[in-house]
Amino acid sequence: MTDFAPRHAGYESRVRRSFDRQAFMSTCGARLLEVAPGRVEIVMEVSPAHGQQHGYVHGGAIGAVLDSACGYAALSLMEEASAVLTVEYKVNFLAPADAPRLLFIGRVIKAGRTLTLTEGDAFEEADSAPGRHIAAMRATMMQVAGRGIEG
Amino acid sequence: MTDFAPRHAGYESRVRRSFDRQAFMSTCGARLLEVAPGRVEIVMEVSPAHGQQHGYVHGGAIGAVLDSACGYAALSLMEEASAVLTVEYKVNFLAPADAPRLLFIGRVIKAGRTLTLTEGDAFEEADSAPGRHIAAMRATMMQVAGRGIEG
Amino acid sequence: MTDFAPRHAGYESRVRRSFDRQAFMSTCGARLLEVAPGRVEIVMEVSPAHGQQHGYVHGGAIGAVLDSACGYAALSLMEEASAVLTVEYKVNFLAPADAPRLLFIGRVIKAGRTLTLTEGDAFEEADSAPGRHIAAMRATMMQVAGRGIEG
Amino acid sequence: MTDFAPRHAGYESRVRRSFDRQAFMSTCGARLLEVAPGRVEIVMEVSPAHGQQHGYVHGGAIGAVLDSACGYAALSLMEEASAVLTVEYKVNFLAPADAPRLLFIGRVIKAGRTLTLTEGDAFEEADSAPGRHIAAMRATMMQVAGRGIEG
Repeated sequence: MTDFAPRHAGYESRVRRSFDRQAFMSTCGARLLEVAPGRVEIVMEVSPAHGQQHGYVHGGAIGAVLDSACGYAALSLMEEASAVLTVEYKVNFLAPADAPRLLFIGRVIKAGRTLTLTEGDAFEEADSAPGRHIAAMRATMMQVAGRGIEG
Repeated sequence: MTDFAPRHAGYESRVRRSFDRQAFMSTCGARLLEVAPGRVEIVMEVSPAHGQQHGYVHGGAIGAVLDSACGYAALSLMEEASAVLTVEYKVNFLAPADAPRLLFIGRVIKAGRTLTLTEGDAFEEADSAPGRHIAAMRATMMQVAGRGIEG
Repeated sequence: MTDFAPRHAGYESRVRRSFDRQAFMSTCGARLLEVAPGRVEIVMEVSPAHGQQHGYVHGGAIGAVLDSACGYAALSLMEEASAVLTVEYKVNFLAPADAPRLLFIGRVIKAGRTLTLTEGDAFEEADSAPGRHIAAMRATMMQVAGRGIEG
Repeated sequence: MTDFAPRHAGYESRVRRSFDRQAFMSTCGARLLEVAPGRVEIVMEVSPAHGQQHGYVHGGAIGAVLDSACGYAALSLMEEASAVLTVEYKVNFLAPADAPRLLFIGRVIKAGRTLTLTEGDAFEEADSAPGRHIAAMRATMMQVAGRGIEG
């Protein structure tokens, strides 16, 4: 895995401010943990409000938190006066999620001028560490500037 | 688009019962409208709880409702004693969503013995009809039986 | 499906010239048929050189021709002094292909300033018309300018 | 990355026999190198027959060899009397490929009873080792039995 250099000193605070504005992450019980250049970690406190029909965590909730994990991994490497938008993502589900807490790791694979390729993995938490692997995402993120949006 | 025949008379009530058990759809403000063989419609009442960092609807919320739209389009054609699980989905985002209500249409492309290919589209609602096209999903759904889950 | 307007009169000849430079399409037995704004058709003459291990057409050959079908549908709507590059594609396989000729249709879903979302479908040919549906692609294409490439 | 155990002693020879029957891999200039449980390596000798319109290797050719790399990584872990079929794949392109030889690595992420999730990466070869990363695939493979096909 390549090491990445951020393009401005405020990359972490920008990611944290932007995450805090994502009301849907709060709705999903998600909280931002680590932010490093090209990598973020998120934890999700599962509640009954996140369930699907068999009592597992809804795959769409997992996809949503993975989307944010990938997006903020990308944003951590973007220019100061820019915003991140999701172009597309694909998620493959490996196992139903049945734990009280889930961990999400988003990582940059390649940061380009306009587009950034990222990947995200979701795990059941086991003893504060990643346990069973439940979903894997690949997402294309876009850096936009001059559109009146930031973060 | 092919016409599909359901495999049992209770297909619609099974879809509706299963949707009602998906607590996360309620969390997303989503309500099931039409259910036909191989096709479902869902409406989402957008609230601030569904926002991303720029005030639009979070792409992950849109992806989650599209996942359910595709899953229930598939379930409407499955055997009576079976359940539907999402294998994978990909969603491409076309425009940021900024409307108070969104419409989602899920459709079966091909229903196989084990796997069903589906697609789902999300629109801003305009005068109770689909307006601007905001996202497009393709999802693979799996019919499972004998695992102690239903719907 | 939306109607699209090309941005310059030479859109068709540019697509045809570019296709003719794609040696791999000739290697795949593929020939460009119709070119309309936002839509192209390609036919593939299947030979033993395109086979996979069970004697069907290799899914990768089908994916390759779908990639070109989607790419040229996108290029037909792009600016005159630009080139098209594939960002990503996903293809779902519906049935093994076992016919002497395959038909491919590429279409634009949305043409943006930088990115264009397209879809492509592959069919077995039956009486010079699309027969069995064998594969479905969604692809993101990028318009690039000023990099010394064209078409 | 997990270690995997093959389900029968003949896994490698089955993969090699099946690869040799894929005429399209020969058409793509691809040759199978290493086969390990859940992992294969393929090399591609690039020729003008694999080109796209700007002289780079056609993304569809890269996608096709990645499809085989993922498929054979999956087959290496499947039951003896079974065959592998591609359900779907997505490939993201990172850079245009401009080298005389490309290396492809296919790996299993999770091997299930019916479905196997795999990933594949393509690199330009540099001094007989992986150089620039050019493409990344995620593919779902299916184990089928009792359909009169093998490998």
